[in-house]
Amino acid sequence: MRAEVLCIGTELLLGDTVNTNAAYISSRLSELGIDCFYHSVAGDNPERIQSAIGTALNRVDLLIITGGLGPTDDDITMQAVADYFNTKLVFHAEPYKLIEKFFRSRNREVPEKAKKQAYLPEGAEVVFNPVGTAPGGIWNIQDKTVVVLPGVPEELYAMWEGTIEKYLSQYSEFTITKRFLKFFDIPEGSLGEEIKDLMESPNPTVAPLVAEGQPNIRIAAKAKSAAEAEAMINIIENKILDRIGKFYWGRDGDTIEEVVGNMLSAKNMTLSVAESCTGGLISSMLTDVSGCSSYIKLNLITYSNETKINTLGVNAALIEKYGAVSEPVAKEMAEGIRKLVGTGYGLGITGIAGPTGGTYEKPVGLVYIGISDGNRTKVHKVNINSAFPRKLIKQRSSMYALQFLRQFIKKAD
Amino acid sequence: MRAEVLCIGTELLLGDTVNTNAAYISSRLSELGIDCFYHSVAGDNPERIQSAIGTALNRVDLLIITGGLGPTDDDITMQAVADYFNTKLVFHAEPYKLIEKFFRSRNREVPEKAKKQAYLPEGAEVVFNPVGTAPGGIWNIQDKTVVVLPGVPEELYAMWEGTIEKYLSQYSEFTITKRFLKFFDIPEGSLGEEIKDLMESPNPTVAPLVAEGQPNIRIAAKAKSAAEAEAMINIIENKILDRIGKFYWGRDGDTIEEVVGNMLSAKNMTLSVAESCTGGLISSMLTDVSGCSSYIKLNLITYSNETKINTLGVNAALIEKYGAVSEPVAKEMAEGIRKLVGTGYGLGITGIAGPTGGTYEKPVGLVYIGISDGNRTKVHKVNINSAFPRKLIKQRSSMYALQFLRQFIKKAD
Repeated sequence: MRAEVLCIGTELLLGDTVNTNAAYISSRLSELGIDCFYHSVAGDNPERIQSAIGTALNRVDLLIITGGLGPTDDDITMQAVADYFNTKLVFHAEPYKLIEKFFRSRNREVPEKAKKQAYLPEGAEVVFNPVGTAPGGIWNIQDKTVVVLPGVPEELYAMWEGTIEKYLSQYSEFTITKRFLKFFDIPEGSLGEEIKDLMESPNPTVAPLVAEGQPNIRIAAKAKSAAEAEAMINIIENKILDRIGKFYWGRDGDTIEEVVGNMLSAKNMTLSVAESCTGGLISSMLTDVSGCSSYIKLNLITYSNETKINTLGVNAALIEKYGAVSEPVAKEMAEGIRKLVGTGYGLGITGIAGPTGGTYEKPVGLVYIGISDGNRTKVHKVNINSAFPRKLIKQRSSMYALQFLRQFIKKAD
Repeated sequence: MRAEVLCIGTELLLGDTVNTNAAYISSRLSELGIDCFYHSVAGDNPERIQSAIGTALNRVDLLIITGGLGPTDDDITMQAVADYFNTKLVFHAEPYKLIEKFFRSRNREVPEKAKKQAYLPEGAEVVFNPVGTAPGGIWNIQDKTVVVLPGVPEELYAMWEGTIEKYLSQYSEFTITKRFLKFFDIPEGSLGEEIKDLMESPNPTVAPLVAEGQPNIRIAAKAKSAAEAEAMINIIENKILDRIGKFYWGRDGDTIEEVVGNMLSAKNMTLSVAESCTGGLISSMLTDVSGCSSYIKLNLITYSNETKINTLGVNAALIEKYGAVSEPVAKEMAEGIRKLVGTGYGLGITGIAGPTGGTYEKPVGLVYIGISDGNRTKVHKVNINSAFPRKLIKQRSSMYALQFLRQFIKKAD
């Protein structure tokens, strides 16, 4: 089965919105083993939408359309699809009830324009939208399958996972399963050398990628079943981990904040963080993990020197002598927050996020990360690329801090 | 002149890469006043690339192709373009010299595969690549203009700005200038009503958009010069602000954290934040703004009840009676952090980020935001969509908190 993703929206053609929906759908089709042969984008224009539908249905069997299902006048996708197939729009009571409920919960009547969201081309099956008012549609028509979904990413994702994935699995003969292995602190260039032979394998394929400045490896296997593909991947994964396993920290959707969170939960340990240059980002990452309240009690963003001294108990003379961005200050921040909150681990971070404030000796991107467990305090010095924007320096610093924390906790085992 | 952007690359169709190039090119075409009517994507397959070129040249005058100019075997774009036009590839000495120079600087011979990058279809003009080895090409052929550029974003950007923009400006009589107006807390549906008449204007065009769940308005003007377009936009902007100016908070790239930061700087006021459900995200947003150290001294992530009571001085009996997620607790958090840090404003936030922890009375997404200036404390209750993932609930809550803070500071004027 050959698929095409057609995204509708003038905002895409003006470059105001990046087309993440096409990537999402392609990625999910690939998991189903359905080949996506084309993406296309057309604006909110009836003729051009119909022309794009025609082009697509001449070259593929499955057309997935997103966008243009909202209540405003320029949302015309359902009408354009109906017109293309010379059919009319018909009213559906079930989605209308949900639209009514949505507005009633806001103490409002259903606006005239919102009513059109309950209309689908004749013969189309309603796709329930668990997070918005616009239902989607699926038809089998003229030997083709057409799926229409909203362009709002959260709605699209919820409907794909709730309905579409299961529906499309009937068309898939084999499956492509991918696994991403994530590494940290691997010496530059050595990853490519270590897996050179494996990269020549046609199935599973092995490819190096870079994410957040760190190397990942993608293993992709094509097989009749997910179980078979997984088994093929496991063999390759084992070979890779035999060679460079000591740099490995997670796979697929694993995040460093989850990995660290799981380690803390498993050890029944708590953590407190004192952030300067990252300004709350490390805390925000840690609290993205559901259940983090079992190991996070109180974190501090000690942005000023005064709060480092008065709240964390950092020695003022050290700041005077070495500056706030220095190894001894990171050390005392880690020890200070740990003592203050009474946690098992304490993490302190101080650095120069830029774009101003850098000097020759202490450039933008210089970051010190202190980690303490009460017996032992370790301080890491990191130099992030000075040319990076402030937000990216904060992100990389946070990622390094949590990676070093993971190594610290692991070493304690 | 009608344009299409065709991006080549199987990684796009697998969903491994998001197509930012199409958005970049569209945005730049729009500035040149060239209408982009379609985007398309094809994989690294000769027949499908040629088919996509044919489809495009049947519907547009200007085709911009990116991707597939690298040295590896799956980089076949130049060959496919030559084949489509029944012409052959010819060698160009100038780009070859640069390829040689690139490898010589790395003490390497030019690999056999890299040589193909010096070959372009007969009749095509070379586009110099200042940051990589692959040159691009421009042809005028069969009444059409075809531009081929690399898919590596930095190379694409450098070549667009270095060569393509100037080249295409000959085709453009007009420039399109855009302005985005950002609003908050506008009663649902009323924005469309308020600007209904303006939305009928053909130039400038006025369109409602949604960003982070809040309405934006895009005004786009087409004129002979940017100055003329700006003047046209100003007229419409004034009309809009006359009607709904009280909901307006920023334009274009403005962020709420910058707007709040500028207000604090202008008033020479300081702020402290006590976060529970947002877990540091508000602090991280505030510290994304360079220079924030003049108004941020110390923020706290008080995740546990104990730290709300012991550090912020929230009355334990209130938590007992109303729960940690409640109006009185948000109020005391705001007042408590303000007093503790000694700032002009204090902000406290408590809510249920989910996915667990919700009840019928207090569902996931329920958030209380307290703001105090010592004289006055205001608490807002917000219900974020319970179906949103945890991270999105944190994001929306943080955005609301900073928007309410902006309103609070403004009201004090």
